[in-house]
Amino acid sequence: VTSTEPDPPHILPVILSGGAGTRLWPLSRPEMPKQLLALTADKSMMQLAVERTHGRAGFSSPLIVANARHANMIEEQLAEVGENNAKLILEPVGRNTAPAIALAALAAQDPATPLLVMPSDHVITDVPAFHAAIASALPLVRDRWLVTFGITPSHPETGYGYIKMGELLTDNAHCVDRFVEKPDATTAEGMLAEGDYVWNAGIFLFRADAYLAALAIHDAAIFEAASHSMEAVIEQGRCIIPESALFAACPADSIDYAVMEKAERVAVVPVDMGWSDVGSWDALHALKHRDEAGNACQGDVIAIDTRNCLVHSDGPRIAMVDVDDLIVVATGNDILIMPRGRSQDVRKVTEALKKR
Amino acid sequence: VTSTEPDPPHILPVILSGGAGTRLWPLSRPEMPKQLLALTADKSMMQLAVERTHGRAGFSSPLIVANARHANMIEEQLAEVGENNAKLILEPVGRNTAPAIALAALAAQDPATPLLVMPSDHVITDVPAFHAAIASALPLVRDRWLVTFGITPSHPETGYGYIKMGELLTDNAHCVDRFVEKPDATTAEGMLAEGDYVWNAGIFLFRADAYLAALAIHDAAIFEAASHSMEAVIEQGRCIIPESALFAACPADSIDYAVMEKAERVAVVPVDMGWSDVGSWDALHALKHRDEAGNACQGDVIAIDTRNCLVHSDGPRIAMVDVDDLIVVATGNDILIMPRGRSQDVRKVTEALKKR
Repeated sequence: VTSTEPDPPHILPVILSGGAGTRLWPLSRPEMPKQLLALTADKSMMQLAVERTHGRAGFSSPLIVANARHANMIEEQLAEVGENNAKLILEPVGRNTAPAIALAALAAQDPATPLLVMPSDHVITDVPAFHAAIASALPLVRDRWLVTFGITPSHPETGYGYIKMGELLTDNAHCVDRFVEKPDATTAEGMLAEGDYVWNAGIFLFRADAYLAALAIHDAAIFEAASHSMEAVIEQGRCIIPESALFAACPADSIDYAVMEKAERVAVVPVDMGWSDVGSWDALHALKHRDEAGNACQGDVIAIDTRNCLVHSDGPRIAMVDVDDLIVVATGNDILIMPRGRSQDVRKVTEALKKR
Repeated sequence: VTSTEPDPPHILPVILSGGAGTRLWPLSRPEMPKQLLALTADKSMMQLAVERTHGRAGFSSPLIVANARHANMIEEQLAEVGENNAKLILEPVGRNTAPAIALAALAAQDPATPLLVMPSDHVITDVPAFHAAIASALPLVRDRWLVTFGITPSHPETGYGYIKMGELLTDNAHCVDRFVEKPDATTAEGMLAEGDYVWNAGIFLFRADAYLAALAIHDAAIFEAASHSMEAVIEQGRCIIPESALFAACPADSIDYAVMEKAERVAVVPVDMGWSDVGSWDALHALKHRDEAGNACQGDVIAIDTRNCLVHSDGPRIAMVDVDDLIVVATGNDILIMPRGRSQDVRKVTEALKKR
């Protein structure tokens, strides 16, 4: 009997490229967001996301949901990594992840297509571990579960949401007991000590129809606005352009709030895969290759008696003497200087600039 | 009888503009030395030196001894401060201060002219105190003494030479007991405790003929090479150009080594006049106006939760968050970052650059 059954549809990677990435100012900016920068390797994080599944059996070419203003840069970067069959959904405005994923689900040819939803601006160093987790999630996904991948926490991070894992559903997939907002340090330490908690990395696997059904139930306004905008879609070459005003009318919400925290049959597969959201200059320093003095330097840098610094120059020569634990970034007309360990405070600069 | 005596010749300010000023790299460079930069005020230190005597009774317009490559910049800066009668002696190469002052002494119309020799790259905030010291030195100068002005030391600085003052010659001029090389910290503290020691600031007052006579005795080679180069001098407008090959053949030496440490009748007038040689970024930070947080910022600077920094930008916007006690200088294609208190280590950078 099995020989006459149609093959199950391939997994469609959905790469979300909506983030503005102000936490890596001045390198990332609205016109050049983090995911399009070659920060961690000689390829951009978007390119690394594409390569995670490129040419792999069981996966289609990806669908990239992006801000329309980045279309040209994304097409160039796709060509650079030889990905010629990807499609782009171009959002006229950002409406957060729940609507973006709805567009992708609506664009899938076969409603049974499993969507592998990935942010475009994260790094995964152990890709085989990721694929093992995907493989172990697939049976639940085919059974219409909404699966999220939870990152095994390495420290009591206060910058991420957590997921409490409930009962075991399969070898390593758990029911989600509950989602936990970004905790304070004490709560984070408690969760780490207790175990059963993983970081919410925003990586999901579910059938297109299962997601749309859950969205229709839990946030009908998003479902309807996204659907209407795709009924009036324009296709131009590899670009899929939802109707602008209809999509702009869509409420903005994250998939976590709009769907995952409310839906039934939500599972979590824990995975330890060298994941980072590269969410700060400190995170980037931790990821990058460092020399014997602990410095990660890119560009024309002279570091003398200097230790544990992250230095990035797109142009000017940076000479540092006798300094430790600094983050220095020079790009365009901007130079940022701040201590390591405080890199979330880059926000103070971007806020001061807005007030100018 | 006094009414028929000729007036004594006016004092001729001799401003030495030969320094390369690598200690303020990257702002000062061979093509733009420290004295031509507006570092401490809206005028350059050379302009401030000119203004110290400009239009003052008893003083001629100055004679500036400079590297020929800086002639145009100096002429522009003289015009900016309305000094239209200054003359320039253009050295084809630098041969240190003893030859430079010899050129000036040889250029003086009247051998009895008192020369007020001043480096072009120092700051004096209490100019009236300086003029009082000059006035008190003049009787000795007319009597052919070589007078140096000694700065009342404020701290046991190891970066300057010292002068031990001997017996009192007049109200406040002393014989020089001896010159002391740059001391180590213990020696400097000892001299400060003992009293009778002043900093050697390289500021002198003597008759042209008295200097030349002492030079002829104590370093005849310099005297002769300088004299020969001036016998074949070319005058172009306000510029006096000693013969190039003859001057290049002159030995290089400082006035201290060549003359002052050896000559008879050397006096020192101590003076407390807010003097600084602006010899480092730290010295500049100490001189500059600082805001409530102790920051001295010039250019487009955003300093948030930042204290006691010196920040200078000629172009790019510099954003600093959560940092203390840094020196940051951005100019042209260079950015320098180093801690306050260690600014002599800029040398490590300029040496590393030479090796490139």
